[in-house]
Amino acid sequence: MMELKSYLKDRKKIIDEALEAFFPKPEGLAGDVVAAMRYSLFAGGKRLRPILCLAGAAAVGGEERGVLPVACALELIHTYSLIHDDLPVMDDDDLRRGKPTNHKVYGEAMALLAGDGLLTEAFRMMTLFEVPPHQDPGMIPKVIGLIAQAAGHEGMVGGQVVDIQSEGKEVDLETVQFIHARKTGALIRVSVTSGAILGGGHAEQVAAVRTYGREIGLAFQIADDILDIEGDTAVLGKAVGGDARKQKITYPSVLGLQRSKQIQAEVIGRAVSALDRFDHGADPLRSIAKYIIERKK
Amino acid sequence: MMELKSYLKDRKKIIDEALEAFFPKPEGLAGDVVAAMRYSLFAGGKRLRPILCLAGAAAVGGEERGVLPVACALELIHTYSLIHDDLPVMDDDDLRRGKPTNHKVYGEAMALLAGDGLLTEAFRMMTLFEVPPHQDPGMIPKVIGLIAQAAGHEGMVGGQVVDIQSEGKEVDLETVQFIHARKTGALIRVSVTSGAILGGGHAEQVAAVRTYGREIGLAFQIADDILDIEGDTAVLGKAVGGDARKQKITYPSVLGLQRSKQIQAEVIGRAVSALDRFDHGADPLRSIAKYIIERKK
Repeated sequence: MMELKSYLKDRKKIIDEALEAFFPKPEGLAGDVVAAMRYSLFAGGKRLRPILCLAGAAAVGGEERGVLPVACALELIHTYSLIHDDLPVMDDDDLRRGKPTNHKVYGEAMALLAGDGLLTEAFRMMTLFEVPPHQDPGMIPKVIGLIAQAAGHEGMVGGQVVDIQSEGKEVDLETVQFIHARKTGALIRVSVTSGAILGGGHAEQVAAVRTYGREIGLAFQIADDILDIEGDTAVLGKAVGGDARKQKITYPSVLGLQRSKQIQAEVIGRAVSALDRFDHGADPLRSIAKYIIERKK
Repeated sequence: MMELKSYLKDRKKIIDEALEAFFPKPEGLAGDVVAAMRYSLFAGGKRLRPILCLAGAAAVGGEERGVLPVACALELIHTYSLIHDDLPVMDDDDLRRGKPTNHKVYGEAMALLAGDGLLTEAFRMMTLFEVPPHQDPGMIPKVIGLIAQAAGHEGMVGGQVVDIQSEGKEVDLETVQFIHARKTGALIRVSVTSGAILGGGHAEQVAAVRTYGREIGLAFQIADDILDIEGDTAVLGKAVGGDARKQKITYPSVLGLQRSKQIQAEVIGRAVSALDRFDHGADPLRSIAKYIIERKK
């Protein structure tokens, strides 16, 4: 297996440089909203979704740097969702990645607009993708459609809706799974899938990568739930125990900590098995699967 | 000239039917957010932006029905912007098109998510556009990029930012023009321009339609400002005089009512002149230009 730590560090650097190159500067009369957008975008995110997009392209033998516009756009969508989720009318959080949340710095109106701006700019950024010669030019609208589906009411937005509707209520595991699969799972799945499509993967390769993405998306959310119980506030950059305080429905709250960890290990096993058809080009995806349950933040 | 009233009625019907066909039904666990999205989408909008997209395609000899996915997507973006603008942290409006605003019916959290969902779904809907044979497949990502630019921090979002930052302050005409050109102008301009591009227009045709779009976008906003002074609450479906109460900067507040009407007539004249190169296929655009300053709501 490869050295994951240096791989993640290298890729994070590539993505941060690309974000800096693609993303607008805070200039002109409306510069304040760009400043607010940049505040959250460059607040120390792990860049997991863009890295998955790059690794998805590499797994099918595609060129990693070519997919950077879409990889970066996925980070913009992730960032917009965090800004809106943190707003007082939603989760009402003051701290994110160890820093005051967007609305604490810029006010609620600006934070709302910064989120709207990031979501919109994400779709502009995707169109910077250049279709490689001899590839189907329809790949980019296809990927834009899949990402919109994963981010919208069928995906992330839908998951957030059911999550806020479930707070303080007794809900079953089916509902927990519905929320997980959409709120975080959908965007993670489409991140790696879009990389495989734009990297020129065949239908069976894309389907295998999609299965991998679905399983690690689930594992990621279970890991988040566990970190909210066992994590370290200083390392995480946010308070732990928030789920329990807000009576959030999580894997541990429904199934207990022990069983949740068992399920998580099974899920990661399925993710790695889905990659059986691939050669060493998929090693980054294999390593990331393990990283997801071992991460401390 | 053509019969504008029946033209607008016919096109509104085509667009309403297409929206019904393209837009999801409120089903499943996250069905509530789709219901909230539909509430505002089918609240009696004039469908001006989709109609402009169809008319832009017709002006260059393109097939109107082909551009419906993008035309409808423009209405979704317009609707999302109204929902977010009406929120208490923004303009705090209770009434829109004679009905309670989205957050008054569904609550603030759901209204925020309904707006997010509409913006996201808009980009999915655009990808339903089918490139006609012998046309450049790059036209659809190009149009998606232009629409995102017009809706984002350089356009609608940027205009809204400067608008809320200017409330209660003395601002100059330059700032008023900056706000107008972006808050409503940008989306109107890109509506007609995207129709001309997807309809297969040549570069000079698209440039002429773009000029038309810029001018009617400006005229539209001046008309809105005038309606807020001279309009009828019962016809408009919202309270008049709101701009003055909130000390909003408008053309009439800076230049007076008389001068604003003069400017509006000049602007419409420039819009119609930009269409000189076109034959009767551009008659809908010519009629719409006049409708914009004669409308009562």
